[in-house]
Amino acid sequence: MTRPLRLDPDRLFPAEPRTRDIARALYAEIGALPIVSPHGHTDPRWFATNAHWTNATELLLAPDHYLYRMLYSQGIALADLGVADRNGAPATNPRAAWGLFAANQHLFRGTPSRLWLDHVFAEVFGFEQALDAGTADFYFDAIGEKLASDAFRPRALFERFDIAFLATTEGADDPLGHHAAIRASGWQGRVATTYRPDAVIDVEHEGFATSMARFAELTGEDVYSWRGYLAAHAKRRADFRAAGATATDHGHATARTANLSATESEALFARVTGSDWTAADAELFRAQMLTEMAKLACDDGMVMQIHPGSFRNHNRGLFASHGRDKGADIPTRTDYVSALKPMLDVVGTRTDLSIILFTLDETTYSRELAPLAGHYPCLKLGPAWWFHDSPEGMRRFREQTTETAGFYNTVGFNDDTRAFLSIPARHDVARRVDCAFLARLVAEGQLHENEAHEVAYDLTIGLVRRAYKLDADAAAPVAAAA
Amino acid sequence: MTRPLRLDPDRLFPAEPRTRDIARALYAEIGALPIVSPHGHTDPRWFATNAHWTNATELLLAPDHYLYRMLYSQGIALADLGVADRNGAPATNPRAAWGLFAANQHLFRGTPSRLWLDHVFAEVFGFEQALDAGTADFYFDAIGEKLASDAFRPRALFERFDIAFLATTEGADDPLGHHAAIRASGWQGRVATTYRPDAVIDVEHEGFATSMARFAELTGEDVYSWRGYLAAHAKRRADFRAAGATATDHGHATARTANLSATESEALFARVTGSDWTAADAELFRAQMLTEMAKLACDDGMVMQIHPGSFRNHNRGLFASHGRDKGADIPTRTDYVSALKPMLDVVGTRTDLSIILFTLDETTYSRELAPLAGHYPCLKLGPAWWFHDSPEGMRRFREQTTETAGFYNTVGFNDDTRAFLSIPARHDVARRVDCAFLARLVAEGQLHENEAHEVAYDLTIGLVRRAYKLDADAAAPVAAAA
Amino acid sequence: MTRPLRLDPDRLFPAEPRTRDIARALYAEIGALPIVSPHGHTDPRWFATNAHWTNATELLLAPDHYLYRMLYSQGIALADLGVADRNGAPATNPRAAWGLFAANQHLFRGTPSRLWLDHVFAEVFGFEQALDAGTADFYFDAIGEKLASDAFRPRALFERFDIAFLATTEGADDPLGHHAAIRASGWQGRVATTYRPDAVIDVEHEGFATSMARFAELTGEDVYSWRGYLAAHAKRRADFRAAGATATDHGHATARTANLSATESEALFARVTGSDWTAADAELFRAQMLTEMAKLACDDGMVMQIHPGSFRNHNRGLFASHGRDKGADIPTRTDYVSALKPMLDVVGTRTDLSIILFTLDETTYSRELAPLAGHYPCLKLGPAWWFHDSPEGMRRFREQTTETAGFYNTVGFNDDTRAFLSIPARHDVARRVDCAFLARLVAEGQLHENEAHEVAYDLTIGLVRRAYKLDADAAAPVAAAA
Repeated sequence: MTRPLRLDPDRLFPAEPRTRDIARALYAEIGALPIVSPHGHTDPRWFATNAHWTNATELLLAPDHYLYRMLYSQGIALADLGVADRNGAPATNPRAAWGLFAANQHLFRGTPSRLWLDHVFAEVFGFEQALDAGTADFYFDAIGEKLASDAFRPRALFERFDIAFLATTEGADDPLGHHAAIRASGWQGRVATTYRPDAVIDVEHEGFATSMARFAELTGEDVYSWRGYLAAHAKRRADFRAAGATATDHGHATARTANLSATESEALFARVTGSDWTAADAELFRAQMLTEMAKLACDDGMVMQIHPGSFRNHNRGLFASHGRDKGADIPTRTDYVSALKPMLDVVGTRTDLSIILFTLDETTYSRELAPLAGHYPCLKLGPAWWFHDSPEGMRRFREQTTETAGFYNTVGFNDDTRAFLSIPARHDVARRVDCAFLARLVAEGQLHENEAHEVAYDLTIGLVRRAYKLDADAAAPVAAAA
Repeated sequence: MTRPLRLDPDRLFPAEPRTRDIARALYAEIGALPIVSPHGHTDPRWFATNAHWTNATELLLAPDHYLYRMLYSQGIALADLGVADRNGAPATNPRAAWGLFAANQHLFRGTPSRLWLDHVFAEVFGFEQALDAGTADFYFDAIGEKLASDAFRPRALFERFDIAFLATTEGADDPLGHHAAIRASGWQGRVATTYRPDAVIDVEHEGFATSMARFAELTGEDVYSWRGYLAAHAKRRADFRAAGATATDHGHATARTANLSATESEALFARVTGSDWTAADAELFRAQMLTEMAKLACDDGMVMQIHPGSFRNHNRGLFASHGRDKGADIPTRTDYVSALKPMLDVVGTRTDLSIILFTLDETTYSRELAPLAGHYPCLKLGPAWWFHDSPEGMRRFREQTTETAGFYNTVGFNDDTRAFLSIPARHDVARRVDCAFLARLVAEGQLHENEAHEVAYDLTIGLVRRAYKLDADAAAPVAAAA
Repeated sequence: MTRPLRLDPDRLFPAEPRTRDIARALYAEIGALPIVSPHGHTDPRWFATNAHWTNATELLLAPDHYLYRMLYSQGIALADLGVADRNGAPATNPRAAWGLFAANQHLFRGTPSRLWLDHVFAEVFGFEQALDAGTADFYFDAIGEKLASDAFRPRALFERFDIAFLATTEGADDPLGHHAAIRASGWQGRVATTYRPDAVIDVEHEGFATSMARFAELTGEDVYSWRGYLAAHAKRRADFRAAGATATDHGHATARTANLSATESEALFARVTGSDWTAADAELFRAQMLTEMAKLACDDGMVMQIHPGSFRNHNRGLFASHGRDKGADIPTRTDYVSALKPMLDVVGTRTDLSIILFTLDETTYSRELAPLAGHYPCLKLGPAWWFHDSPEGMRRFREQTTETAGFYNTVGFNDDTRAFLSIPARHDVARRVDCAFLARLVAEGQLHENEAHEVAYDLTIGLVRRAYKLDADAAAPVAAAA
């Protein structure tokens, strides 16, 4: 029952022949462009040490919550998949875990994981038969062999993938040692960091106290005073810029912002860093800090990303046994119109500030986000995110934002992944879906084909460079410069 | 102006020729499979007595709120359609009512009712001209004649429709006499019940007191004590299982659940069964009872269905004159992420429990339901429901749930109908829409055609059998067993 | 790099050839029908004075917030586009403003503005090259010349556009002088008004006091007493009917209604017209006034339109500098099910009342609006509105409302525009999208082609005439009369 593994060269293009031809022509020009990855979660240690990865399970399965949450949803124990719990990695046989994954490939039919896996197996590893129970051992052995070769070490793959820029994400208390090591090594791969200060902003985060202590140590500031705390943020933002960062990132439970006076902010800060605060205080402090971050961004030119709307660690039992980031984060309804107004009252008319908004609540695309980005100079829309980083999700994003925000208030694709080997697959999906969308506009007489080629280039390369300030010459209007 | 009535053999398949060919090939293998109907509202009396139905109006129009609400929305009086009010059936001439319905067929263009009616008229009754003012009498007479024949008695149609399993829905206070009569008759048709205890759980239901009295009588328990009340539920669940039930069903206004201590629950129960309670108490009691039902399901293995989010009897004037279930139930915004958490804190990691979630709020598909079902072992997604049991509704369901939850966290189709003659039509629509969806995945290179055939079978037969525990051997993983 | 400007005769039709052929055939019969525009914001002064428009910038750019908000979102200053601020029109050179607009045409790719502009440039002005930096001056000069000719005066274009009916919108304090002048002129163009009393209902509106004073003056009523206030509304509604109005319009922030007793209403009125009221009072008064308007509509037969859900003047800085209606209105989540119930408790079963509902929250289409309109005799659905008046927006409207509400609980198209020259373009887009939608239903076997032709006519002409009571003989059921 093993099926051949062959990537359809026309995958994700519309079936209708004329539209497909247009999509093919668009893709022919942009499909092989270098990868610009301005937001993700790969481990900078890989590129610093350039050490070999070990085996299929430890590289591809056990760290990937997209994969194991689906298996878990069907009653498969995480321990049997090699997923670490609060006591560390289980004593699971990696080959057995891989076999279990292989035997349940049908669960991924119709999901983006299936597209990414097919691409990784066919393009990165060169398999010609699909993964299933019958080929599991062959896969496990072949992947292990390849990973032991120099061609599959992190830097070699980075170069093979033609990655022009890759951003990782580090906390405000991170010493950025791996990034320093990368630069010191003389390797030319462009790997930058991103400033993600959530753990020193969210007083409800279990690591808040520890992170604050390190934050104090790294900055030498009195981070327990409001003035010192803000100064520490400014210092660390400068450290991060020195490590290549052009952006910050903020993953709050809601998009709420606040516009408190300096006195109110100071009093709130004293409260939440003391011992007597409420959940409402914690939320208000996160809200005020988004506005503070926007003000700092006006000063230092960093791009601000807001990723709100995830109910983290929803599964109480699993959080108790396994901790965070185990595929149990569930999106919630998110408001932007009221939530962002206090911050926009402060910075909304700035033309030198860039705030990129993401959402897990697709209902906001046409109702809130496109109208906001289609008006405010400082707002741009990030691509379809997380659960919506998928062909249908991307299609809905374009269909529901373009008519109000246009293409030029969006910022190209983010892979947002820690699964390094899937990065080319993810960018390829986005490029194909964008070409399919543009092809339909051309086929239905809404856009000229030469305009579509220009837009396809901008969605792939032009907008991301400009939005994340990756090139000095990228400040010019995108299409006008073409 | 009469048009011929001919069902397009390719109806609901995409027009694009290659995709249509794939859809046809998929449908050729599953279109004629037996019907498994695990959730619906047909009257068990029909199969117990096997009595003839009378005429077109009384069988097809007057009891079907999908049809008469549309006519009512255009200013037609319910009395003129033969719809009963609080005083019983009106003295309307059934032929005249049928004529009014026939003359307004244009109102149903583009609705699923039109698809179902066409199927019933063409396939069940063999008409070759469409219903309209000119053919109304011919239809009325011909249907009346057929209904008087043995071939159109309930059991004969059940067999002709090739129904392998049909679940009805009865309240906790139902003596299940019709189901007993069916089994006693020796007839082999498999008709089971479903435990729906809303009227003894919702203290705001106008029939609560009466239902509780019958609940007490049928169980011999002291249902006015918390302990006796829970014991009565356990007893009646056992009675229902003896009448073939594998599932319970819960139709609350919201999806809210609670996780009270035993002491708190007992106090709440005392309050809501006394004379001094608030709407908030009533809601909290319904919430706690969902958790109690989940705990009972862990004990007795019954599958739990939750159908929340309908604002019942929205039209005050119509409720006063006609009572409930008159096409005036309007969906409301529904939250699942916070609402289900208290129950999931108790049973969320169970792999031996199955809770099937439905929604009338399509915004929850991609934002809440697919992520929940794609993580929690005990959660599955019911099909597109009620207003969304339609081609576009089903398409949105697949497009918005598959990428996160896959196919294998869904449970196949429910017809959810009291319109017995439309059951084959409804299943046929679902099968066609699923084939169309799968055909697109194949045509766009996301799925191999042989995988699509396997999925088509599972969506039609495999998943429903497993989800509703209809076969002893259905516990094996679905596709893995293929 | 200038591209030719040629409107694709098949634009907005599906690419699949058989479906496209059906769409073409449908459009061939309805594409050239007269325009009925029952709701919009053109200036009646144009038709009263029939004065020449001046230049491209003052006619097409500076007053159109669809256009300048997009340019503003990319950092272009409104002053550079000729947009007036609180001090009046800036001293911008109109030709320079036009050049800036021309050089940024890429921003409109994929937006409905692009479709409308192409249509205006190609069909109204006869350009054969697209607008861009290179053709900007040529456009500016050519448009200026044409506007100076008699063929481009307002009445000539009205006739050339084949407008059978055009409704403008005036406040309760408007003397309706332009409408009187139009009638007195003997010109046969049918231009009517619409009663929009928001500024005398919304006590939070900055013009409330001024509008009330004029309201008193025009009616001679004591508008500061509850009884006199209601009488003034009745009088002005009669004035508006005499100026051709068949409808009223209500643009509240929410859809909330109330059902207060006469005593409560009177007390509330006294409060909000005094000096001591809260935001909650203001909201309750707006809510009660929707119900009062519905009651008046039962008396005088005017059709009631409700346009809720816009957060007006979201950009604080811009509102301070430029005032209202500057492209900074952002949609918000809107509830209808609870919000409308108090009003529906009063008028919900009336078959002689027509209330047309609009939304900016597309999530309500399938969840709330279609079920409400598919039940209540007095409710109908207005077309896709504002941000959703676009090909994708219209397609979502049909896909998400038709299956529950049918076509016959909708009311045809509204252009809702102040951009007079774009009216034919906007109606053309709607007609094409409707034909495309119907063509798919035919191609997928859900509708016969001759039925689709009948529906296409009704969506273009039949339903709007009936819904807005534009013809004495339009009271008959639409399709049944065909």
